[in-house]
Amino acid sequence: MQSQSKMYQEIQEIPDAVSNLFEVTDLAVDQLANQIKDQLPNFVFTAARGSSDHAAKFLKYLFEIYLGIPVVSLGPSICSIYSSKLSLNNTMCISISQSGQSPDIISVINSAQNKECITASFTNDSNSPLAQKTKFSVPLQAGSEKSVAATKTFINTLVVCLVLVAKVKKDVELLSAIYRLPEMLEKAIRIEWPELKNELENCNKLYTLGRGLSYSISNEASLKLIETCGIHASSYSSAEVLHGPVEIVDEYHPVIALISRDAAEQSIVNVCENIAERKAKVFGTSSYLNKSISLEFVDTGHPFTDPIALIASFYPFVENLSLVRGKNPDQPSLLKKVTKTI
Amino acid sequence: MQSQSKMYQEIQEIPDAVSNLFEVTDLAVDQLANQIKDQLPNFVFTAARGSSDHAAKFLKYLFEIYLGIPVVSLGPSICSIYSSKLSLNNTMCISISQSGQSPDIISVINSAQNKECITASFTNDSNSPLAQKTKFSVPLQAGSEKSVAATKTFINTLVVCLVLVAKVKKDVELLSAIYRLPEMLEKAIRIEWPELKNELENCNKLYTLGRGLSYSISNEASLKLIETCGIHASSYSSAEVLHGPVEIVDEYHPVIALISRDAAEQSIVNVCENIAERKAKVFGTSSYLNKSISLEFVDTGHPFTDPIALIASFYPFVENLSLVRGKNPDQPSLLKKVTKTI
Repeated sequence: MQSQSKMYQEIQEIPDAVSNLFEVTDLAVDQLANQIKDQLPNFVFTAARGSSDHAAKFLKYLFEIYLGIPVVSLGPSICSIYSSKLSLNNTMCISISQSGQSPDIISVINSAQNKECITASFTNDSNSPLAQKTKFSVPLQAGSEKSVAATKTFINTLVVCLVLVAKVKKDVELLSAIYRLPEMLEKAIRIEWPELKNELENCNKLYTLGRGLSYSISNEASLKLIETCGIHASSYSSAEVLHGPVEIVDEYHPVIALISRDAAEQSIVNVCENIAERKAKVFGTSSYLNKSISLEFVDTGHPFTDPIALIASFYPFVENLSLVRGKNPDQPSLLKKVTKTI
Repeated sequence: MQSQSKMYQEIQEIPDAVSNLFEVTDLAVDQLANQIKDQLPNFVFTAARGSSDHAAKFLKYLFEIYLGIPVVSLGPSICSIYSSKLSLNNTMCISISQSGQSPDIISVINSAQNKECITASFTNDSNSPLAQKTKFSVPLQAGSEKSVAATKTFINTLVVCLVLVAKVKKDVELLSAIYRLPEMLEKAIRIEWPELKNELENCNKLYTLGRGLSYSISNEASLKLIETCGIHASSYSSAEVLHGPVEIVDEYHPVIALISRDAAEQSIVNVCENIAERKAKVFGTSSYLNKSISLEFVDTGHPFTDPIALIASFYPFVENLSLVRGKNPDQPSLLKKVTKTI
């Protein structure tokens, strides 16, 4: 039987939300891309929380790997609590917030403006305080999102990041991979992971792994497992997990690796196989796995769009897992859609 | 009965390790401080893994709050896997590694050198490849550390960060707080947290919280709980935890907040009290807690030295908890002292 949850409904809307984004945000993204090309900022810094901060992590890897522009992930408290006098000459601040309302993110923009730093925001509400305060405001165009767990707004944020860098580099190949996304995402949201569902039905703790761009997806997957399924999930890069956290992985502590077809694929596969030798159940989205269990995935034909298809397959999985575990995916018991922190 | 573990022994050596550091690293830190003052880098970037990366987080907050210099935490894969051509004009790379051996950290230094970026390292082995490759090499002078779980090397790394920024700013007040540390740490390592020990004896999951400088301490505390006690611990900033992760906090999922006497104290106390209302056991190092349980702490008299005393009190606690839980704190089953990743 088809799920009646808002989260399920919003996941079904993902391919259209992405198509819709292409149609309307071209101008805003063009302007921001031109600003980056003209300004050549020394570095970019991001201000974001929750899922939006995972999107900021995607932007960080993308800017660093592909544009060669270093990205500072700024703890909002640096501005909101510690009132730091940061040196921000020739920089750009990109703030990401679905609601555009959290006071700590707005305090970062206020500090940045005082420094004559270029400010930009990605929000799903063009009338929000954040959108109003920033010089460049890119609408996420995901439509109304009612489930507490963000899905289509998160994916649209990643797509905005991709379109932005493709335009900076005038990369026709990347742009065509991006324009194929709605079709790829139609396939991705139909994928099911029955073996993983069986494993997680009664599981209370696990790790998700990623590397490079897929590390941001891993962060998002862990947060969704916490929010909708009540599973204590932690996300690590596949290198970092070996520097300590691997210690508690055993037969009751599975691992899910979100693996893209990119330069890191072999290194993350090696870590999975290494961990699988320790009796742990390891699942991953790669065909090179042997001792670990391969999960079905959509190969989008470009290393930068692969992670977006991965999280699009993960969302219906986690929504369904939430129901199987007797939870309401739309309404975590302690969370609200808009969280305001200082 | 006194513990026979190497970890216990090395914790006892912390105050002397810090005193020893003052005597011998003055020149190396002076030179690096002068370089920062002369160069005024656009930003600093760090390369580190595990506990050393938590120390790098301490450095990040310290540089951003106090020096106003933004810090990029660079995923080593950006260089080791993705061979990014990062723009690093007028920057400084600070690499931190107790062993100075991990290939991914060394690959960051190689990339930085090609860019004529200024390189520095903090290591406990002056003959290591990392120390040899960097222009400025600050010895951590912690003496031999045999327990897999780093303690005195971590604390000495934090102290090096503090001495460095105090010298950049010629801050006599901060320097005198730093020079009081050995005495403060003697007190800190004698503190016991019996109520928390009772609570965690059979606990399998928890969160640690911090904010600003104490967030790096929170990361370190979580990693130690994983490594030595087999507890699935995750660390969050006290703002970030409200954006989703708080969902799974309940009477079986305690929270430990590492709170300094600084500008963030009231905000983190508010989060603790808010969470404590949800039946969760919340422990924190502040006297302003009411519904949460106050843990004893050493007030060092300066907001920047407080987190060092907090982690110095946490280390003997976690070593003892490891024994109480029937583990060997010196020898996690899956970890080695030196982890090499690519």
